[in-house]
Amino acid sequence: MAVTAEEIFATYDLLGEIEAQFDDVETEIIRHQYNLSKDLYVKRAEIVSKIEHFWPLVFEQAPQDIDEFIQPTDAQILLGSIKSIDVKRFEIDTPVEGGDPRSVSIRFDFEENDYFEDKVLEKKFWWRHRKDGFVGYVSEPVDIKWKAGKDLTNGLLSLAKAAWEEEMAAPKKEGKEKKELTPKQKELQEKLEAEAATGAESFFCFFGFIGERVSAEENIEALKKEAEERKKRQAGEKVEDEEMNEDEDEEDWEDEDDLDIFPQGDTVAMAIADDLWPNALKYFQQAQESDDLSDDEDDESEDDEEEDGDKPSKSKKHKACAHGCAH
Amino acid sequence: MAVTAEEIFATYDLLGEIEAQFDDVETEIIRHQYNLSKDLYVKRAEIVSKIEHFWPLVFEQAPQDIDEFIQPTDAQILLGSIKSIDVKRFEIDTPVEGGDPRSVSIRFDFEENDYFEDKVLEKKFWWRHRKDGFVGYVSEPVDIKWKAGKDLTNGLLSLAKAAWEEEMAAPKKEGKEKKELTPKQKELQEKLEAEAATGAESFFCFFGFIGERVSAEENIEALKKEAEERKKRQAGEKVEDEEMNEDEDEEDWEDEDDLDIFPQGDTVAMAIADDLWPNALKYFQQAQESDDLSDDEDDESEDDEEEDGDKPSKSKKHKACAHGCAH
Repeated sequence: MAVTAEEIFATYDLLGEIEAQFDDVETEIIRHQYNLSKDLYVKRAEIVSKIEHFWPLVFEQAPQDIDEFIQPTDAQILLGSIKSIDVKRFEIDTPVEGGDPRSVSIRFDFEENDYFEDKVLEKKFWWRHRKDGFVGYVSEPVDIKWKAGKDLTNGLLSLAKAAWEEEMAAPKKEGKEKKELTPKQKELQEKLEAEAATGAESFFCFFGFIGERVSAEENIEALKKEAEERKKRQAGEKVEDEEMNEDEDEEDWEDEDDLDIFPQGDTVAMAIADDLWPNALKYFQQAQESDDLSDDEDDESEDDEEEDGDKPSKSKKHKACAHGCAH
Repeated sequence: MAVTAEEIFATYDLLGEIEAQFDDVETEIIRHQYNLSKDLYVKRAEIVSKIEHFWPLVFEQAPQDIDEFIQPTDAQILLGSIKSIDVKRFEIDTPVEGGDPRSVSIRFDFEENDYFEDKVLEKKFWWRHRKDGFVGYVSEPVDIKWKAGKDLTNGLLSLAKAAWEEEMAAPKKEGKEKKELTPKQKELQEKLEAEAATGAESFFCFFGFIGERVSAEENIEALKKEAEERKKRQAGEKVEDEEMNEDEDEEDWEDEDDLDIFPQGDTVAMAIADDLWPNALKYFQQAQESDDLSDDEDDESEDDEEEDGDKPSKSKKHKACAHGCAH
């Protein structure tokens, strides 16, 4: 086929525009769904507060993206002391310039426990765009007031928080000037390297996730740039590519990723906000079925309890009862 | 805590009602999203028809739920002759009593190829409810006109279709009367057992998926029953449990599952309709990045081609370019 390079670029421009329009639909759908379900989540919270161990049971059945980060010591708190979870799309609740319905805050309420003083831990994830094309969740470290000798993150979380504050206070470098690590960042880097050897990082490092550095201002600028480019493309004008400068930036980001005590924080946030939270009733039901299963097993052999770790294969096909709960 | 059994059941009834309300929201959202994106999918189809190998490249990056069923021989057709895919939510387009926005038809258009005569293969999946609590996709076998000696399903698909027609023609048994297999069903069962030993089943058996037996009438009855129970629960009345009769039915279903030549057909249908289809541009972009990667590798060692099978780790974080495509 004799297709010119011009024609190919024109086709890709059209695809880019279509993708942007799909994204607009997605944004509208997230907003619509949030507004339609808001009151239902309030009602759900009321009802499940009457069910003992509701959220611990849900967490016990957490999907792989969350479960793989829960260490046995974490489980004691998460499964023992978690009182409730709440997810809010705070930029729908309180719109701001450049805000996105994808931005979520995740709030954990805890019972009094042996590990930390906090009754509430809340972490915000902002959905942001950057001029180089990055789109995703960014956050800020949230510290935990550990009781003496009980810090499950072994000092990592507090250090991440301190390093972040130092980074924010440092004068901003412009353009190609190479960023230098602050003293706390260097300390963090060394500690992370030392910890990497030991492996099992606590789930509570999740509260330290930062991700890419994208300020609210950079996000607004990027959105403006994207809107201008869209207008140009819609008018059939050529949009310049700025890929040349990107390679250099990319190296900086990788440095930053090395400094993140929980680089998969965005994935876990999504798994909580888009799966564990909306599907909590399903996971609760699974937990009950799993209990029923162990009960059946107990009938046959009384000794082998503690089978909770084994998840039964998730039966998508048959609801245990029309109420969606096993009784 | 002194909670009576009555109180626990009341709480579960409330949960069941909340779950039903969440389901209503979900239904409304699927409908809304479909209507908002319909024209965009038409535009997308127009644009991608100008891109050579668009759909083969998308299929090359198919998510695990689809990819695991594609055998090397299937790949020749799927990656070589597939012209386009189309997904329609036909019960939104043409509403019927008991219809659901989740019902999908998946249509594959093929180029002239060495394997079969059909230019179009289309399979419908109805989202249905049954009185015992089952909710999910059911379908009917769709046969393929294989060219001589080219049947990738080794006769399974045609036999599944014939057995289905015999089953539909057989007089319907009532209530507890045990269903007997028809001659074609027995033949199919034997053939399936024989094939199970050889392992690698063709992806094209997907067109033979049936799933649970739920007629349009049974679906309507079940929906009516669910609506009545909801009304009762909302009025605070007790809803009787009919779990006692269910165990017996359950055995029948398992028999039927044994007779399905592609029992995971519902999962694959969902993976196509809810992932491959809406995210086709993303998968296409991944395919191009994967090509770019192999190009880079080629620069270093010329011999080492054919790396297409290796998928690069999916970079969610950086779009290759603001257009969402790599050029």
